[in-house]
Amino acid sequence: MDPLSEIKNLSTVDSQKVVRIRGRVFSKKDCGQILFLILRDGIDTLQAVLVKNKADTQLAIEDYKLLRSIENESFIEIIGQVYCAEKAVLACSKQSIELAIIGYTVLSRSVLDLPITLKESAFIEDEKFENQNFASIQYVKRLDNRVLDLRTDLAQAVFRINDGMLFYIQQYLRKRGFIEIKTPKLIGGASEGGADVFKVDYFGKPACLAQSPQLYKQMAIIGDFKRVFEVGPVFRAENSDTNRHLTEFIGVDLEMVIDRDYMEVVHLVYQLLVELFAALNKKYDREIAIIQSFFNVPALTFASELVVVPFPDALALLRAHGRERGALDDLSTEEEKQLGAIVKEKYHTDLYVITGYPSRVRPFYTMVDSDDRQYTHAYDFMLRGAEILSGAQRIHDYTMLSERVLEMGIDPTTISHYLNAFKYGAPPHAGVGMGLERILKYFLGLPDVRYSNLFPRDPKRLHP
Amino acid sequence: MDPLSEIKNLSTVDSQKVVRIRGRVFSKKDCGQILFLILRDGIDTLQAVLVKNKADTQLAIEDYKLLRSIENESFIEIIGQVYCAEKAVLACSKQSIELAIIGYTVLSRSVLDLPITLKESAFIEDEKFENQNFASIQYVKRLDNRVLDLRTDLAQAVFRINDGMLFYIQQYLRKRGFIEIKTPKLIGGASEGGADVFKVDYFGKPACLAQSPQLYKQMAIIGDFKRVFEVGPVFRAENSDTNRHLTEFIGVDLEMVIDRDYMEVVHLVYQLLVELFAALNKKYDREIAIIQSFFNVPALTFASELVVVPFPDALALLRAHGRERGALDDLSTEEEKQLGAIVKEKYHTDLYVITGYPSRVRPFYTMVDSDDRQYTHAYDFMLRGAEILSGAQRIHDYTMLSERVLEMGIDPTTISHYLNAFKYGAPPHAGVGMGLERILKYFLGLPDVRYSNLFPRDPKRLHP
Repeated sequence: MDPLSEIKNLSTVDSQKVVRIRGRVFSKKDCGQILFLILRDGIDTLQAVLVKNKADTQLAIEDYKLLRSIENESFIEIIGQVYCAEKAVLACSKQSIELAIIGYTVLSRSVLDLPITLKESAFIEDEKFENQNFASIQYVKRLDNRVLDLRTDLAQAVFRINDGMLFYIQQYLRKRGFIEIKTPKLIGGASEGGADVFKVDYFGKPACLAQSPQLYKQMAIIGDFKRVFEVGPVFRAENSDTNRHLTEFIGVDLEMVIDRDYMEVVHLVYQLLVELFAALNKKYDREIAIIQSFFNVPALTFASELVVVPFPDALALLRAHGRERGALDDLSTEEEKQLGAIVKEKYHTDLYVITGYPSRVRPFYTMVDSDDRQYTHAYDFMLRGAEILSGAQRIHDYTMLSERVLEMGIDPTTISHYLNAFKYGAPPHAGVGMGLERILKYFLGLPDVRYSNLFPRDPKRLHP
Repeated sequence: MDPLSEIKNLSTVDSQKVVRIRGRVFSKKDCGQILFLILRDGIDTLQAVLVKNKADTQLAIEDYKLLRSIENESFIEIIGQVYCAEKAVLACSKQSIELAIIGYTVLSRSVLDLPITLKESAFIEDEKFENQNFASIQYVKRLDNRVLDLRTDLAQAVFRINDGMLFYIQQYLRKRGFIEIKTPKLIGGASEGGADVFKVDYFGKPACLAQSPQLYKQMAIIGDFKRVFEVGPVFRAENSDTNRHLTEFIGVDLEMVIDRDYMEVVHLVYQLLVELFAALNKKYDREIAIIQSFFNVPALTFASELVVVPFPDALALLRAHGRERGALDDLSTEEEKQLGAIVKEKYHTDLYVITGYPSRVRPFYTMVDSDDRQYTHAYDFMLRGAEILSGAQRIHDYTMLSERVLEMGIDPTTISHYLNAFKYGAPPHAGVGMGLERILKYFLGLPDVRYSNLFPRDPKRLHP
């Protein structure tokens, strides 16, 4: 038996070759004497053809009948001879070849009634709701039947790109001396001393799920690993049902010692994003074209240099455009969006960074600006008018950190293991945390962050 | 200001150069007129020297006094001139150079009293307890102060190798067409319909933490991703305090469609391990030497070809060596160890695979052998006499799977989302799940699996 071939690798070069391939029955058309069966493998489709009562095939009339009536989505193997199509097979991704069926094996049958359709039409409705609410009945139904939904062109494309994103981020960081770490998700206290945590029963003792690897990646830095990154789940018990929130998402966190200031991290992360997006656009051009065929998204624009908007400047820009707001308030989602438009108009970029956020809107471990304690050494990266990642220089001095903990009203005993770590000397350091799904959403222009998580979790969804 | 240099990159080539370096004060020796200060950065150490009242340095007597009395583990920057050492500096990893201190900055001071010592002597005690109990007071204390412990040569070496392990596994799998996926850790039912799960309060609804990504990676296969892998936390609420168990560990899972039989996966995984160990031995020779200086571990031996021991043969070998046991019982830890010795004697290998485990000791989703339903298409890989990874071909037929669920006494409604997925056709597939810490433990010959987790979790440990 010859090794299996894959549809994606077949071309007119293989004409006359007998191949063995596997895939899903995508559709069938019986023209009386000829059966056209489209076989699908991932995002590739190929037309297989069976002529009734043809002398040179060993298949009987029963086989013709079986294949004619086999349920769509059944998983089958076909042995067939490749030939050049007389005219382009427009319904398939392989337009210049077809396959004359010689033999077949049904490996796994599907049921007849599929709860969702895998055709393009199913997605059109989603375009409508780039808004705060998540309410498409169609989309909810697709997520309920995610295993079928994952077989669509759209999902196949998204998770190939997702894989590429993981790969390029890891490659970029390793090349720059970062080592990958894995820190615990089960923790004794709340991970940042905050609310919104999922509680766990740990052999009768109270525990919770890490809201971020923040304190642990810092402890790795204090443990002298200099440059570390982690890719792992992050848990947020926030009861918010928006198109940007998940209760469990893929966190990509990095932390590094710095020499002079936090802009070392900002520039490294900017370069990471620019190279990442360029690499994805190049390698996944076909997948991105598929996604663009569903959602009408303008291409990303970058300035040639990193655009840095200090927080007071962001405020001034918003005020100049008619928005009234407090000087030390955090940016709302609406303000971020408006600011994105203003910055794009002014600097011709979809990606920029806001630096120096106010102290009162940042966590206790954020380095406060010694010139003006109302501000911090914190920054956010914005893509298409939305925050995609957040970071800061951290306080590395034990006394300063202890004072800040008290100032913020946190009980130091709940984070004593973290605080104690700073007693033994800590290098100056800074880092960022990003949500992979959100970067994917804004890079691709997906209407909802749930598109970029394989089995998304939100306050109402724990299944499948 | 010149860019920072790193101790590891300095050599006699840099003689006479003025460099700026950072690190920990590892130790000091004041000889009255000369201060010797050993600076440590990771696993590298360099001797820095300050001569009192030397004419050509701008440092005053106060500086001499300060550096003489600075607490060990303080993080400092030194500007100094590299010169060739007159005789080898045996106390340092950089034996042929020293640094004449010109200037310094104290970036972060440590407290004077460290709860644990970072010297080699601290580890000797651990050698004693390669056994089931975890009782070294010394080691418990080190884990309590993990941030300091991570700075030791041993931990620095282990987590560099851990990073390499993650890298090589991912590289190997991507080259073979696997894509990386991330599946949810918060799930509605028990992940394999079993006990030993951590329970979570999910907005007032019951949920639990995934015991493995098993059902989700299979759903990704049914969703047509063909070859997938995941690296992520795995949670086991097992109250067992041994040197091989953690309640949270790093799971590396892979799943793939198969053409003919499960040996396709076995061979792929064997090749992965062989290449992984070879790559680690090559790249981390220095780190491995450090670890070997602590623990007396024989080098790994491999046969030139994969050694496969079918389960009945394993049984026969054990019986021939005087062990009485039931034919369909699972192998105990002791039996695995004994078998490892027998196989090593017979086939000269520390790595081999046992295939065809009995049905009653394997989970419900395991493909049962159609020739003899007492056995399955399941396999375990053994390294140094211990199981390091477990895998199987899975049932891909909906009817067969549903029957097996009932046979095993599992309520099908608790895993309905998983079962339903098989209604829409599933390709034949198989895979494995491995614990990264355990592979690292047996590859390096570490006495306890806790050595290979950054912040280990066991029934008694949730901190730091």
